[in-house]
Amino acid sequence: MAFASQFDPQPFHTDPEAAKQSFFQGLAASGWHTMSITMRLIVESVPFAGGIVGAGGELSWRRPTRPDDVLYVRSKVVEIIPSRSKPDRGIVMVQSLTLNQRDEVLQDSTAKLVLFRKQVG
Amino acid sequence: MAFASQFDPQPFHTDPEAAKQSFFQGLAASGWHTMSITMRLIVESVPFAGGIVGAGGELSWRRPTRPDDVLYVRSKVVEIIPSRSKPDRGIVMVQSLTLNQRDEVLQDSTAKLVLFRKQVG
Repeated sequence: MAFASQFDPQPFHTDPEAAKQSFFQGLAASGWHTMSITMRLIVESVPFAGGIVGAGGELSWRRPTRPDDVLYVRSKVVEIIPSRSKPDRGIVMVQSLTLNQRDEVLQDSTAKLVLFRKQVG
Repeated sequence: MAFASQFDPQPFHTDPEAAKQSFFQGLAASGWHTMSITMRLIVESVPFAGGIVGAGGELSWRRPTRPDDVLYVRSKVVEIIPSRSKPDRGIVMVQSLTLNQRDEVLQDSTAKLVLFRKQVG
């Protein structure tokens, strides 16, 4: 509710009573809150030396994140595309599924990350 | 820096000194912070009766959001797809460009929104 009050102030994210009559039939987290928590989990778990620098990506929300849900993320490198113009870097596509404590998929996201080649001395 | 400390704790988002040596060559906002501010601006400006309910979307970051940047958003309905299975609703694709005070495009996002038909009495 704190996140949504600041960034996504709509009753189904901020008002438990009003949320009951909404599309979500109860309080639901802002999808951007789910994505932001996912990013935190990716930063803590995906071991890229230069950090996680995103050029963009896509995502879909399969079901709402609910109060008291505990989230985890499964990430997979799906493609590595060396840059043609800049030989020191490339694009790495990483798919991350965000799941709750019942192993239900809440969000499916694919990020396009900028990564640098290992320096070979 | 507060947003990134919570959701995207990487030095180029949280440490002005370390950021100077990074890919961004100076402090940059987390892309998810830019997207979250964009969402706030969309909620305050896009007049859909049932609210802004996203099924998903895609985005790309064209350049970093910097300290003291002031953001605004230009949104455009690019497509309306009536649902074949649920006649009371449809998908509306809304493209939103996020720009700074120098009219530079920071982010290009397209959201897939669930909208309901107007009730005709």
